[in-house]
Amino acid sequence: MRKVEKWGMFEIAVRGSQDGNPFVDCEVSGVFEGGGNSVRVMGFYDGGGVYRVRFMPMFEGVCRYRIEGSAIDAPVSGEFEAVAPTGGNHGPVRAIEGGALAYADGTPHYSFGTTCYAWVHQAPALQEQTLKTLSEAPFNKLRFCVFPKFYDFNRREPLSYPFERGSGEGLDAALVAQTAAEPAWPGATKPERDYGFDYFRPNVAHFQRFDARIAQLRDMGIEADLILMHPYDRWGMNEMGKAACDAYLRYAVARFGAYRNVWWSLSNEYDFIPTKTDADWERYGALMADNDPYRHMCSVHNGLVPYDFSKPWVTHQSRQRVDFYRHVEYTDEYLARFNKPVVWDEICYEGNIGYGWGNITGQELVRRFWEAFLRGGHAGHGETFMDPQDILWWSHGGVLKGESAPRIAFLRRIMEQTPGRFMRVGKGIFDEVVGCAETSRARADMPLVHDYCIHYLGIARPLYRDLVLPEDEDFAVEVIDTWNMTVEDRGVHRGHTRLALPGNQYMAIRVRKV
Amino acid sequence: MRKVEKWGMFEIAVRGSQDGNPFVDCEVSGVFEGGGNSVRVMGFYDGGGVYRVRFMPMFEGVCRYRIEGSAIDAPVSGEFEAVAPTGGNHGPVRAIEGGALAYADGTPHYSFGTTCYAWVHQAPALQEQTLKTLSEAPFNKLRFCVFPKFYDFNRREPLSYPFERGSGEGLDAALVAQTAAEPAWPGATKPERDYGFDYFRPNVAHFQRFDARIAQLRDMGIEADLILMHPYDRWGMNEMGKAACDAYLRYAVARFGAYRNVWWSLSNEYDFIPTKTDADWERYGALMADNDPYRHMCSVHNGLVPYDFSKPWVTHQSRQRVDFYRHVEYTDEYLARFNKPVVWDEICYEGNIGYGWGNITGQELVRRFWEAFLRGGHAGHGETFMDPQDILWWSHGGVLKGESAPRIAFLRRIMEQTPGRFMRVGKGIFDEVVGCAETSRARADMPLVHDYCIHYLGIARPLYRDLVLPEDEDFAVEVIDTWNMTVEDRGVHRGHTRLALPGNQYMAIRVRKV
Repeated sequence: MRKVEKWGMFEIAVRGSQDGNPFVDCEVSGVFEGGGNSVRVMGFYDGGGVYRVRFMPMFEGVCRYRIEGSAIDAPVSGEFEAVAPTGGNHGPVRAIEGGALAYADGTPHYSFGTTCYAWVHQAPALQEQTLKTLSEAPFNKLRFCVFPKFYDFNRREPLSYPFERGSGEGLDAALVAQTAAEPAWPGATKPERDYGFDYFRPNVAHFQRFDARIAQLRDMGIEADLILMHPYDRWGMNEMGKAACDAYLRYAVARFGAYRNVWWSLSNEYDFIPTKTDADWERYGALMADNDPYRHMCSVHNGLVPYDFSKPWVTHQSRQRVDFYRHVEYTDEYLARFNKPVVWDEICYEGNIGYGWGNITGQELVRRFWEAFLRGGHAGHGETFMDPQDILWWSHGGVLKGESAPRIAFLRRIMEQTPGRFMRVGKGIFDEVVGCAETSRARADMPLVHDYCIHYLGIARPLYRDLVLPEDEDFAVEVIDTWNMTVEDRGVHRGHTRLALPGNQYMAIRVRKV
Repeated sequence: MRKVEKWGMFEIAVRGSQDGNPFVDCEVSGVFEGGGNSVRVMGFYDGGGVYRVRFMPMFEGVCRYRIEGSAIDAPVSGEFEAVAPTGGNHGPVRAIEGGALAYADGTPHYSFGTTCYAWVHQAPALQEQTLKTLSEAPFNKLRFCVFPKFYDFNRREPLSYPFERGSGEGLDAALVAQTAAEPAWPGATKPERDYGFDYFRPNVAHFQRFDARIAQLRDMGIEADLILMHPYDRWGMNEMGKAACDAYLRYAVARFGAYRNVWWSLSNEYDFIPTKTDADWERYGALMADNDPYRHMCSVHNGLVPYDFSKPWVTHQSRQRVDFYRHVEYTDEYLARFNKPVVWDEICYEGNIGYGWGNITGQELVRRFWEAFLRGGHAGHGETFMDPQDILWWSHGGVLKGESAPRIAFLRRIMEQTPGRFMRVGKGIFDEVVGCAETSRARADMPLVHDYCIHYLGIARPLYRDLVLPEDEDFAVEVIDTWNMTVEDRGVHRGHTRLALPGNQYMAIRVRKV
């Protein structure tokens, strides 16, 4: 019997009808029985008369399936065995209690994202370079777009288009008129539009490339945060009518849903797409939830107005900062407000471009990471350094040029050393953030004393810090230089302890009850 | 006839009764007629049978006076001539329309403060050194305390006490009990109290020293922001009863009110004095307004809760930041809310001590200054560098060790070059602060284009900035490096202009219609 790992992907291909438009005129689906459940998943047309049905078993043991639908003459049945996961297969990432993240097998997940919006639309050699860079980088989530991108630094045509060339089938005439009348997003130049596609006919070569990239990322332990829509368009993706949009999303779920590492980001900067309404986003969210039996992580990334994260289909708070000066410092408040993971997908990139969202220092980006993680959240990286070939990591991938990535790797190691499954902000004095391990408890008589915590001092650069520890218990103290990536053992202490510090910014102090 | 400059100080001394406690048992006052007005000011006892009455003429011309009161046998009359001001005498600073500041003669005033809380309580040589430092520094306002200070780094006894030794006359027994029961302010250690004064009997030597220092500051063009009360006490100043407090404040007004450079700060961190109620502060404010015919600048500095700046006797918003991450960036909002000048008296000091209010870099302090001033406010400096003799500028004065002062001088020059009387925040793109001169107007068709403005980029470090200027007008463009203190002429431009920048933080761009 064929064997597939639990949380691996089982796929079966069947030949079927090529009449009419097989993407919409026919359907195929599979019913999978095993682990005490029966699940129906939709299949998808992959061109050349081939239909595929993919399934991710969430259990171990025998799984029986039946493939059926109007696309094929007769149902196909069979079985496979879901076996124990191996290696880095911990299953899909889930929101767990307290707004934390963990893999399905219980392994804690701290989401260290990065962003290469259009990397799969670049030349193959550049894509390979991006994968090589990622293989040496600390990131375990990558945000990228299914649709091609038109924007500053992104004027070249993509490697392929998501739809076949055609005469605009699926466009909504009213939305086309709306786009002609107003810019695509605030400050956008109005590009020449190219409406020459059939929006009901996915370009299978385009989607096959995404299959391959998602699988490669999975094998590298990287979550694929797939951005399904975005504002930076000149090819009509934002003027598609309801039926075409829904067909596209169903296709994406059927095609990509069985990869354990997929996250759904319904949109980047959803509020910068004037052709979409609140009702559209809610319909998309419901559609994803209805069609995705695995309930992958699913959210919406904002421009100026965060999405309503209280919606039941929203699994986490995908956020871009909206206040220019204070943002990640609200992480614990946002966590308390929605009780869903706070994932900072955009907090300004390390770089030097003109735009205010892409020119902070490595120091400042790393500071934002520490704030976000110690407050119980997660953060995403990006780089926007000017480049003679206009290859900017944030969109094109390539190589990393900044200083933040190694420091983010260091922070990831610190987070992974933390007992329990998450950090939470604890009581501290006003000028520090105190991140406490899930397992940590504050002393009843000394609410500033925690079993396991990290004091983060941010931009302050004191020459000392006074710790007020109990007289009756021992605490191990370490001084962490978050920029120079050192952890210095300062011994075991009780009572009032004055800790000498180097007078540099970006220091932290780890205090653990012995 | 004796001549005194307009806004100068006329003083007359008379001999009078030494019976009982001359500070409270007798009174003397003066009525001054001139400039079409008649003003009564209170005199004060200066020891040794001498009473003084001081008056600041707000006009030019002959002034007739009559000194009278229970302290003297018979009234004394006379006249003097108030003549035109000379040199740096521009009169007292006032709030003017739009929440700006100006001297009485109309000269714009940008308040560049610094803080040496206890400098007048230090050894004379150190005080002289402080004055020398100030003579070379950019500051035109100095905050300091009349009462001595007990706090970390401030454990030595002061040079003198504000009251004569005695047996606690004027103490409020209930407040003494309250202080015995709770710490003086959050986190304070409870010092041994020294209640051995007569709180109705000012120590004239102490106050004479303040006279001399205020006059020296005046002659250096520095406003004396006198802090009348504060929490850092071990000598009973915060356990004085109502009558003693009011007598002290009346004494301070009578004694110091005729110096044109005096500002009244009723308290530092008023909300950290548990022995004072809201009603006390209001009574003090009303008392100052009633007794000060010149209506000097008067406000209250907060710990965690800003004072209610809408009160009629409050002339300006004396603020300590209350959010750790965003503070001066609210300047324009606070200005709009109260329509009174926003004076940031505490925004963290440049230094390296353990406390979170005293260990930022010079870069960060200067950044806060630029934010505050371009948004129409004012800011205050301070330094808290660890010192082997515990001489920290913030409290003791001495010498400046930081990097911010020369950059603050540079900013002051930029502000003084600005046409009109103040800056206001103007419309700009989201990642910059745009400070516009009072005289500047935005183009009706291009609301981002101003006649005279400075774009400040803060911690961003872009390699270029795109200016979108009108096609039909010329604009002179300069690149300002606020840290390296350079102004680079970049010529005259129209239309879309890409301005190369060095890729450093803390840059600004000045744009002026030619």
